[in-house]
Amino acid sequence: MRIAFYQTSPVYGEIEYNVREALETLAAARADLYVLPELFSTGYLFGSRKELGRLVERVPEGPTVGVLHKFCRSRGCAIVASIAEVDRGNYYNSAVLISPRGLLGKYRKIHLFDRERLWFQPGNLDFGVWTFKRARIGLMICFDWVFPEAARVLALKGADIICHPSNLILHYCQDAMVTRSIENGVFTVTANRVGSERAEAVQLTFSGRSQITDPKGRVLARAPKVGRKFQVVDIDLSLTKKKKLTPRNHLFHDRRAKYYKEITRPTRR
Amino acid sequence: MRIAFYQTSPVYGEIEYNVREALETLAAARADLYVLPELFSTGYLFGSRKELGRLVERVPEGPTVGVLHKFCRSRGCAIVASIAEVDRGNYYNSAVLISPRGLLGKYRKIHLFDRERLWFQPGNLDFGVWTFKRARIGLMICFDWVFPEAARVLALKGADIICHPSNLILHYCQDAMVTRSIENGVFTVTANRVGSERAEAVQLTFSGRSQITDPKGRVLARAPKVGRKFQVVDIDLSLTKKKKLTPRNHLFHDRRAKYYKEITRPTRR
Repeated sequence: MRIAFYQTSPVYGEIEYNVREALETLAAARADLYVLPELFSTGYLFGSRKELGRLVERVPEGPTVGVLHKFCRSRGCAIVASIAEVDRGNYYNSAVLISPRGLLGKYRKIHLFDRERLWFQPGNLDFGVWTFKRARIGLMICFDWVFPEAARVLALKGADIICHPSNLILHYCQDAMVTRSIENGVFTVTANRVGSERAEAVQLTFSGRSQITDPKGRVLARAPKVGRKFQVVDIDLSLTKKKKLTPRNHLFHDRRAKYYKEITRPTRR
Repeated sequence: MRIAFYQTSPVYGEIEYNVREALETLAAARADLYVLPELFSTGYLFGSRKELGRLVERVPEGPTVGVLHKFCRSRGCAIVASIAEVDRGNYYNSAVLISPRGLLGKYRKIHLFDRERLWFQPGNLDFGVWTFKRARIGLMICFDWVFPEAARVLALKGADIICHPSNLILHYCQDAMVTRSIENGVFTVTANRVGSERAEAVQLTFSGRSQITDPKGRVLARAPKVGRKFQVVDIDLSLTKKKKLTPRNHLFHDRRAKYYKEITRPTRR
């Protein structure tokens, strides 16, 4: 299976341009699965909830899902991307998995980061995994990386590849995703963006270094800190099936769930 | 608070020598909490369960806990070490937390690695956290690092410092413990050993690189791959109390436990 990320540098608010520019780049090399960054179509740093309201789209009825679907249909591929979704007046930071047949999966970011709380509702759907070309594909978004439960739940639901559209600022995540790969025996694709955005007194610079990791913790691809980068990698999906670390150790069968009870207890505030 | 690890090179089967050598080294520098490797007193690669039977000790009645206690009492410190425990005919790969008052905490390794399954019973006690000099101290052992649930449960139970006696072979764990620190907002102390052991056709070489990490993911100390190493670090315990990543993000309060249900479901086999 051939998978790819495109580390983009979107222009804030210019959905049509950002989507077209992304797809023109993806068209340069065939892959089965392409992963694009978080909010790749809109940019990230909304000035207000009202401003976001002019950029949100319905899923799957909105134009961006439509254009992505057309691309997937014509090329027999799948795309994971994160876009700003509106549903019944609520805004979500969502990731979509589009296949030649249309919308295959949708995830709404469960762990919102910092100012996203001013703009978006926290996700209200379970972590999901969907099958494309025999690969089980799980979705999480950016800051979800800090919570080991996100990747864990996706892996326990059978994910082979965790697609991870991101808008990372700091540099911790990339190493953490190596750990996520090892502890769960999965591939991960972190598609981060580059560039800077400013709104009011806030300035953010995104940190690039998009990467693909394999179940042994190998970094199969890593982009530079700056600049757009489109990268394609062939992976051996069978690596995710064994989950054996030694002849006597299985990543999942060795779990001893009765000792993990605190993890699903509601957190006190 | 001053914490330390001693990366030892035990002589297989020579409990008295190994314990004396360790304590002579620890005596060289004052610390509040010293962490020693997994099975520091016995060595690791038992030829058989019967051979292990000659090396196990009762906790706290056995001689090693007695000697460690004497050291702690005379110096007002605590020690974490892992030893081979016997209880009602069952053998456990256990970690003990000894304070001036005697045995303060005990943990039996929950996730046994490879051939340990031939020798030991899997741990049958919950992950535990105990207080010494206002630090909440959690215990896990070596291979537990692969399971994010281990450090997570300890942190949710209030651990400030995760003490992690180890006999690591590979090199993945050290980076993973940086992630464990960040995701849980805790200090970690991985006390690994060096040297080689052989039993029958098996030869193991232990990989050193003992380390101390802080809640921001900084590596405060790291030992070399080879050679004994005793290292002492001053830490600021208040760093573990905030758990704030941004003014709007709290590592624990932001957890959304209702989406983590798979983690505590018994794993199918």
